[in-house]
Amino acid sequence: MKSRQKKGLILVNTGNGKGKTTAALGMALRAWGQGMRVLVLQFIKGGWKYGELKAAEKLAPGFEIRQMGEGFIKGENDSALDEHRHAAQQALKAAGEEILSGKYDLIILDEILYALHFGLVSLDDVLALLAQKPEGLHLVLTGRNAPPEIIERADLVTEMREVKHHFTSGVPAQKGIEF
Amino acid sequence: MKSRQKKGLILVNTGNGKGKTTAALGMALRAWGQGMRVLVLQFIKGGWKYGELKAAEKLAPGFEIRQMGEGFIKGENDSALDEHRHAAQQALKAAGEEILSGKYDLIILDEILYALHFGLVSLDDVLALLAQKPEGLHLVLTGRNAPPEIIERADLVTEMREVKHHFTSGVPAQKGIEF
Repeated sequence: MKSRQKKGLILVNTGNGKGKTTAALGMALRAWGQGMRVLVLQFIKGGWKYGELKAAEKLAPGFEIRQMGEGFIKGENDSALDEHRHAAQQALKAAGEEILSGKYDLIILDEILYALHFGLVSLDDVLALLAQKPEGLHLVLTGRNAPPEIIERADLVTEMREVKHHFTSGVPAQKGIEF
Repeated sequence: MKSRQKKGLILVNTGNGKGKTTAALGMALRAWGQGMRVLVLQFIKGGWKYGELKAAEKLAPGFEIRQMGEGFIKGENDSALDEHRHAAQQALKAAGEEILSGKYDLIILDEILYALHFGLVSLDDVLALLAQKPEGLHLVLTGRNAPPEIIERADLVTEMREVKHHFTSGVPAQKGIEF
């Protein structure tokens, strides 16, 4: 029988459904409960994620959420695309530094795949990030449209697929659920 | 424009992939951060979920995880099936009471769909639970094989689909990730 070995994993939550970021946060909570040090780096700043930010404050130290990046892109012709790109590059730089810092056991690169999909960061840069991951560190990447090269490199990939959504029946975003 | 309305939702996390319970926990964290009172009722006791249990302790009051049920079933001929059924029925009873108690804003019925799939609780009983949900309460149901009747009744359904898993390449369960 194989003895239990410690191995930092690369995990990907992708797909068009809900739960990509939320599952990453749940994982963060689980890891934190195990005494691990957790960093969430948000590549897309989401002002509505107020609940998590407040929770993270209460769980500090050892649970840190850093909001970087800009908000979601308003279509292909978003006039602020340069700002988005600049902000995402800053997040990428921070990710590179923290991955090598040895300060964390689990780092969540939230919506990095969204930034990748919109060309705010390059595939080469993201693959370079993964390549420098220290052995013991767990990395979680979230966002739609995970490209095959990332899936190839990952240990665990889950697709969150939308089966039914209340927005389509006119129910608006709910406090504690969507924000 | 529609004004923001408060409506308790029924959410379902299903599918063969990872992240059903984890996303529910992330949602619990988000809700808790918003000052909501959260109860997680585990229909299948999972001893390895040590991380969350410790985190929940730190987040108390307002974040409660109650382990009920027995462990996962060891195949169709599990000799302890009666015990499993009894434990799941107890969890169902507790769920019914807490749904009506007014003490929570979000209740997660973790792995209730697993219990349903193995016949530990009946579809009628679960539908009856949903029918008595007070307007403002959010309910989350997790587990594989959500039946159509539950999907029909739910507001938001997400399928977590396994695309790739490290177990299949021989990497064992990792602390902070799987337990």
